[in-house]
Amino acid sequence: MGKLLVVGSVALDTVRTPFGEGTEVLGGSATYFATAASYFTGVDLIAVVGEDFPEAHLKFLKSRGIDLAGLERRPGQTFRWKGEYTHQLNEAHTLDTKLNVFETFRPKIPESYRSPDLLFLGNIDPELQLDVLQQVKRPKLVACDTMNFWINGKRDALWRTLAQVDVLVINDGEARALGDSPNLVQVAQKILAKGPKHLIIKRGEYGVLFFNHKQTFGAPAFPLEQVRDPTGAGDTFAGGFMGYLAATGNLSEEAIRQAIIFGSVMASFTVEAFSLDRLRALDYKEIEARFREFKRLTHFNDLP
Amino acid sequence: MGKLLVVGSVALDTVRTPFGEGTEVLGGSATYFATAASYFTGVDLIAVVGEDFPEAHLKFLKSRGIDLAGLERRPGQTFRWKGEYTHQLNEAHTLDTKLNVFETFRPKIPESYRSPDLLFLGNIDPELQLDVLQQVKRPKLVACDTMNFWINGKRDALWRTLAQVDVLVINDGEARALGDSPNLVQVAQKILAKGPKHLIIKRGEYGVLFFNHKQTFGAPAFPLEQVRDPTGAGDTFAGGFMGYLAATGNLSEEAIRQAIIFGSVMASFTVEAFSLDRLRALDYKEIEARFREFKRLTHFNDLP
Repeated sequence: MGKLLVVGSVALDTVRTPFGEGTEVLGGSATYFATAASYFTGVDLIAVVGEDFPEAHLKFLKSRGIDLAGLERRPGQTFRWKGEYTHQLNEAHTLDTKLNVFETFRPKIPESYRSPDLLFLGNIDPELQLDVLQQVKRPKLVACDTMNFWINGKRDALWRTLAQVDVLVINDGEARALGDSPNLVQVAQKILAKGPKHLIIKRGEYGVLFFNHKQTFGAPAFPLEQVRDPTGAGDTFAGGFMGYLAATGNLSEEAIRQAIIFGSVMASFTVEAFSLDRLRALDYKEIEARFREFKRLTHFNDLP
Repeated sequence: MGKLLVVGSVALDTVRTPFGEGTEVLGGSATYFATAASYFTGVDLIAVVGEDFPEAHLKFLKSRGIDLAGLERRPGQTFRWKGEYTHQLNEAHTLDTKLNVFETFRPKIPESYRSPDLLFLGNIDPELQLDVLQQVKRPKLVACDTMNFWINGKRDALWRTLAQVDVLVINDGEARALGDSPNLVQVAQKILAKGPKHLIIKRGEYGVLFFNHKQTFGAPAFPLEQVRDPTGAGDTFAGGFMGYLAATGNLSEEAIRQAIIFGSVMASFTVEAFSLDRLRALDYKEIEARFREFKRLTHFNDLP
């Protein structure tokens, strides 16, 4: 079993969807990532919170076996995000962002974290992502996320980071912006030519596409009768993906495909409830059962 | 091998996409359907054209082994559709529709066509679809398509038709309108409760979802480096789907899943070129090769 390190945000979210709302609930990319990954492996977490961050959330993260030695607690308020979704649940509308202590976040990797086997660089400034990479012994696998803000505002720095990264995990809108084409195959060719060895494109309710120089893999999203809150689905996906790879220590193409399905499975749980409510209540048997349902969902016989 | 009958439109399309244009090129739901199906089985076609319909198109359809005894030739002009697509290729913008001889189309099934094993009711007035059903000996499998125009304008007639149908094949926007929900699982439950035994939801570049009372199947669309013209993709899908089922005579769940992949394969060829240009130039080996690529695209190992 490999050591997994995540750098990202821990936040308090206020979210409204057609199915309810959550006020100042636990959120943040590193939170979703680490909680999802914790069902497969231990996780070291790097993030920052303010003095107001509830003790109960820390307790929860610890209860999941997440190492919080790298969770800084700084004077000031915790990062807050406020958003809403219409029935078109694929896209969040941000109502308010208060970066607070996250604004001056400079990840410092504790000594005990400096030899991760796998590293996930959550969606932060690409220069900080690169700085994190320089603080650790080169991991076996580095994955990262980004967003339009950095694609538009710090493209050169982002490409420099991507050149050091094994797997880029982004959503389809971001992929099209970064690859500068509406066609995802062309997008993949451009991105793979300049940087990461593997590209995972998240398409929300439409599933996921994976590209590298040798192959393409596609899977639908798990069809759910009730999607209550899509917040955190992408980070949960990444957590399931990296958590499984860390647990098996196997980075073969077959393992990567299974890891993508585990990521999709974990994301399908997250969106069934607000915040991490569904993710908190899981046991590993449910995860395995849904993986097997995924297999039945996508199975067809090959030609003789 | 079963006998396959299709009722629908034969048209002359004028289409513009970011990748080129076609002026008065061969189109129509029955045309795409029958041509796709012809790679698997013989097809009997019911449609109407005007006096202006080019002889070369008739020759082409005959060359594909399509029986044209049911293709009426009437005084007047052939159905014409004019549309365009932006880079967002999933949705056509209709610029002009001239129904011409199609406006008064009343399908009359020739004696020789009255015992089909499989029947596809293309997107026409649901009352005409029902009328066709009454003219034939009950086939083993009846599938149909529809569109928002009938969902909004003739919903009761449409439900009466759907109650007689085994497979409804529609796109996701239409499914949401008919099932009155943004959630496709809920949509499927509503539609299956009132009518067809099987529901296939086409999602364009995002692939396809299949529902019946017992199971769900999902497949991504085949990732293509170049999509030039999406016109006819849905009818091509239906043609590949029904053509394969007719060819095997097997209506098991496993055969239906394979048929959905064959439908997706055929649609992936159609969109690579304008009109039926790519579909005309196919040989069956290419179809089988792409089916196998689809298997590799979607394969992952189950848990031990």
